[in-house]
Formats: sequence, structure tokens, C-alpha cells
Amino acid sequence: MNRMVHTKPPITEHRNQFFVTLMTLLDRFYQGDKIALSKIISCVENQSPGYRKVLAQLYPKAGKGYRIGFTGPPGAGKSTVVDKLTSFLVKQNQRVGIIAVDPTSPFTGGALLGDRIRMQDLTNLEGVFIRSMATRGSYGGLATTTKEVSIVMDAFGKDYILIETVGVGQVELDVVNACDTTVVILVPESGDSIQAMKAGLMEIADIFVVNKSDREGASRIVTELDMILDIRRKKGEWEYPVVPTEAVNNKGIDLLLSKIYDHKEFITSHKILEEHRKNQIKGDIKKILELKVREMVDERILNSLDVDKIAEKVFRCEEDPYSVVEKVLKQIRITNSE
Amino acid sequence: MNRMVHTKPPITEHRNQFFVTLMTLLDRFYQGDKIALSKIISCVENQSPGYRKVLAQLYPKAGKGYRIGFTGPPGAGKSTVVDKLTSFLVKQNQRVGIIAVDPTSPFTGGALLGDRIRMQDLTNLEGVFIRSMATRGSYGGLATTTKEVSIVMDAFGKDYILIETVGVGQVELDVVNACDTTVVILVPESGDSIQAMKAGLMEIADIFVVNKSDREGASRIVTELDMILDIRRKKGEWEYPVVPTEAVNNKGIDLLLSKIYDHKEFITSHKILEEHRKNQIKGDIKKILELKVREMVDERILNSLDVDKIAEKVFRCEEDPYSVVEKVLKQIRITNSE
Repeated sequence: MNRMVHTKPPITEHRNQFFVTLMTLLDRFYQGDKIALSKIISCVENQSPGYRKVLAQLYPKAGKGYRIGFTGPPGAGKSTVVDKLTSFLVKQNQRVGIIAVDPTSPFTGGALLGDRIRMQDLTNLEGVFIRSMATRGSYGGLATTTKEVSIVMDAFGKDYILIETVGVGQVELDVVNACDTTVVILVPESGDSIQAMKAGLMEIADIFVVNKSDREGASRIVTELDMILDIRRKKGEWEYPVVPTEAVNNKGIDLLLSKIYDHKEFITSHKILEEHRKNQIKGDIKKILELKVREMVDERILNSLDVDKIAEKVFRCEEDPYSVVEKVLKQIRITNSE
Repeated sequence: MNRMVHTKPPITEHRNQFFVTLMTLLDRFYQGDKIALSKIISCVENQSPGYRKVLAQLYPKAGKGYRIGFTGPPGAGKSTVVDKLTSFLVKQNQRVGIIAVDPTSPFTGGALLGDRIRMQDLTNLEGVFIRSMATRGSYGGLATTTKEVSIVMDAFGKDYILIETVGVGQVELDVVNACDTTVVILVPESGDSIQAMKAGLMEIADIFVVNKSDREGASRIVTELDMILDIRRKKGEWEYPVVPTEAVNNKGIDLLLSKIYDHKEFITSHKILEEHRKNQIKGDIKKILELKVREMVDERILNSLDVDKIAEKVFRCEEDPYSVVEKVLKQIRITNSE
């Protein structure tokens, strides 16, 4: 730190200021201050200076919280299921954190109105904290950011962290798949089970929910899912249940919760959870390392290149990007001085 | 190359063999051999040794092909729209390449049966080449791989490259957004336009298609989309049309194609295409560089760490991954010897 002061004094002073503020925030955070929690999440989301130091402090305090991921096609009623489940958990004196991964739109400039209203409803419940996260910006690093925010909530003392993603894309699948229990929510309208297979949902689900189960075709999709899941079900292993719900009418949510508890118990007693967490940690280390190295590359390599000029040459077919990179990398040395 | 022979002879010989095969393939590729095209795509997809050298050769030969991306929620009928559009293009003597980005399932072990049948139908058409790409494996690098496969098709002489993605996730959006024209396909059942906004579809669409427009609610969603798009429409700029289609009955496809031609003409004459391509190239350079550096990191840093041991320590809360990485990076030097 001192060495840096000599080379770049203004930035470091700025950073130090940030850092002092963060440490004060952390004190309040440890006392259970919700505003401090919110600010620390923002700091992690925006990768403000010092955020990694904060995470380094919080990481060892996390690990008690249980992560449940929810995904499914748009319009399946994920938010409603999560909301109703939250009420059940709160009744059982569980502290709940919700992360809603939400694509933002330039037309609305942020989270949609519906979610704002929703947030007010939920935050009135004791021990509930909800956070909408934009996919824009954190692009590519969404899974990492979500993970980091869940670590903050975990360290804050949340017993359950519910992570909900809109859409069924690869990044979204990655986000929920990193959870301890993954719930996939479908509706009779969301097409047949073949579509679910195509969207990659069959592989990641620990529990299936068929929501809006009062509608036509509900029993058909439950049967179809059951048949496909039978291939996956093995004696003595997890049962992969299909739970019909009518979330708006609070129907089936109690069964869903008991299946979540069952899954938690199953993976804990079979040491699957421990294994999963260790693998997660290995992945975390790799990602943090790659992120840091990428920053170093951006800073020390890309900034020293005239990318515009190179792009112009490539556009005119005078060069190709692969050979350009080869040339650049010939000048780069990565050495481990250990 | 010679320097490497001295240090690691067996691997290099193996690589050289691969490389000779690739060069033979390239000869056949330039003569218009479909099987060579197919094999070179596989080589790029699997990142076989030498694939970057192949891409370096093909890159300057690409650039004439026009990329059209198709996305939308599962079940919207993207494949049907793409198929019918392909028939129209073929009638106009255009050579078409199709890339279907398709999540694979462990239950089926690859592309689904429907797509296999589909492929047989389409490949009977003159000048049409279709390729299903699995999302598994290429994970994270899907956008890059798709881009590279489209470069291969482009260099092969395809006039139009149609890229179709299942799902509406961030990676999928990225894939189609990288295209020259982006078509978003919705159906009356896919929920209201608010859902489309939430899924991030409004921002990326150059053309909207409301497929299955004979169904109830079709005119409502067309009107809704039109109203929202009006905010985006500006005098003298692109019109952002909404095209109702009934793809199975071949209705509206001619209108869609004329709108695609309009968009192509618009972005070409307004120099938007040139700008877009140059930005793409800049992004390509950055991605290739990052990928290479990441490989170097994996090879030279991660392999020298006992990640299992570190993960165990982190799991026992004796360390945190952020501090671990800081420690590791203190030993790493990235230097530009230019």
C-alpha cells in the first residue's frame, strides 16, 4: 500500500477514503444494520475500490446460509412462488435474503414498477431483505457478482438466500446451478417438456414446480416430467420431485418447502453439500484469479495497443486478429517468481 | 515453431500432423467441399490444435456474408421462421448457412431428434448448410465460438448466415446481438410485451416478428410492441418494424425478408454496418487476447497451485479466496517487453 502512495498519490488517497468508509460500514453491518448491508452490496455490485478486501473479511463468516435458486421461462410466476415461500420461511423464524436477477430496460431505466411494489411488500416482513440485480453491466460476470452478493447476505446472517433469475439462458442457468438447491418453475403454457429439455432445464433441477396448476394441461406436463425424470431417479438417491403449485392462491407452497427441506437434508447427510461447496470454492479461486489477471492484461497490454488502428487494418483484410494477438503475446511474459 | 520442437517434441509432432491435415482440409474447403467445411467447423468448435491458424487464414476471406440473428422465448417457432426464410433466400439464389445454438441434454446425448429431421430437409436445398451447436462445453465462450463458426461459413461463401438461439438468456442475447440484423420472435402466448422488456428483448431487436399471428391476442401484442417501439423510432432512423407471421403456413415471411433487406440497406448506406463490424473486430481482438492469456494463466499459475488444499482451508474458514489470490498474484509478473 505504501509503495503505491509514492507512485500514484491521488488515487490511493481516494481509495483509502473509500476504504475507511467501508470499514465503518462493516462495523454497522456486523451490528445488523440493513442500510449498511444494502451499501455493502452496492459496493460489491459496482466493484468499488476495496470491495475485494470487504469480501475477504466476509467470506469466512459466510457458509451457514442456504442458497436456493429459482429459474424458468418468463411468465412462469417465479416471483410469486419466491414471495409465498418467503412468507412460509418467515413464519418459521428464518431470515431470508432474496436476490432477483433482473434484466434492466433503457425504457424504464431500472427495475420494473412491479418489482418496486413487490419489494415494499416483502421488506415489511421481519428479517427479509430483497435486492434486484441488473444484468446489464455485470455482463459476463453475473454469476460471480450474484455469488458475491449472496456471500454478503450470508455473512449478514440470512438463513436462506433465494436467488431468482428471469429467462433460461446459459448465464442464468449458471447462477441458479451454483445454488445448493435448484428449483425449476414451469407452467402448462410454457410448452411441453421437450422444450424444457431443449432449454437445459432438466439437468439442473433438483425440484420441479408446475405453477398455475389449475390451468389446462397441468396434469399432462406433470406426468411428462415425471416420466422423463424417472430415467434420472435411482434407488437411494434424490427423488427429483415434481410439485404442482398455484402460487397466487398459496397452494402447494407448503409441499414445495418440505421438498426443499428434504433436499437440504439429503445433500447434507450424503456429504454432497460439502463436496459442492468445496467445488464452488475452487471455482471461486479460479474466477477471482482470472478476473485479476484480466484486469492486469487490460491495464498493461490493451492500453498500450492502438486497437483502433489494428481494427482498421483487420477491416481492410490487411491483418487478421489471431495473428495480431500472437504478435502482441510474443512480447508478453507471465512469470511465477515463486 | 522450431524452438518448440526442441522442448516438447511429441506434442509438437502430434500438432504438426493435425496441422498438415488441416491444410489439406483447407484446400478442399476452398474448392467448395461441404465435408471439409463441416470438418473445419468441428475443428473450430472443439478448438483442435491449429484452429487459430486456420481462422487466421479464413478471417480475411470473410466479411461478405451477412449475419442475421434470431431469438425469442422457447416455443415461439424460431426454427420454422428460419426454415421458411431460408427457402425464400434460396429461391433468390442466395447461399445460406444456418447456425442453430442448441442446448444439449444428457438424456438425448446431443441435438434433439426434431433438429436431425429438420437438418435433412434443409440440406437438400441448394447452397444450404446447417450446423447445430451445443451450448454445453463451449460454455462462457459460446458467443466467441458462434462468431468463429460464422466466420468459417462466411469465408466458405455463404451470402447469409442465420444464427438461431434457443432461450433468451444473456449469452444468447449476446450471440444474436453480434449479428448485423437481429430478429426477435414472439408469439401471442409468450406473455405481454412487459415480459419481452424484462427479458431484454426490446433493446436488441431490429425487427420484431409476432409468429402464430392467427392465434388469439396476436393483434394486441403487435399493437403493444408498436406503442413501445414508437419511443425508439426517430425520424430518418431505422423504423423498427413489427411483422406478423404464420411461419408454418408461409405467411408473412416475404414481408419479413423485405424488412431484413431494408435493414441491411439502411445500415449499409448509413455506414452503421462498417462501424458495427469495426467494433466487432475490436471486441474480437480483446476476446482472443483474453482467452490466450487465460490459457497461459491456467497453464502456468493454476497448475502450480494445490487448489484442493487451498479449497479445504477456505472451507474450514482458515483462509478466504480473495486473500489467497492476492498472495498468488504477488508472485506473478506480467511484462510487456516491447
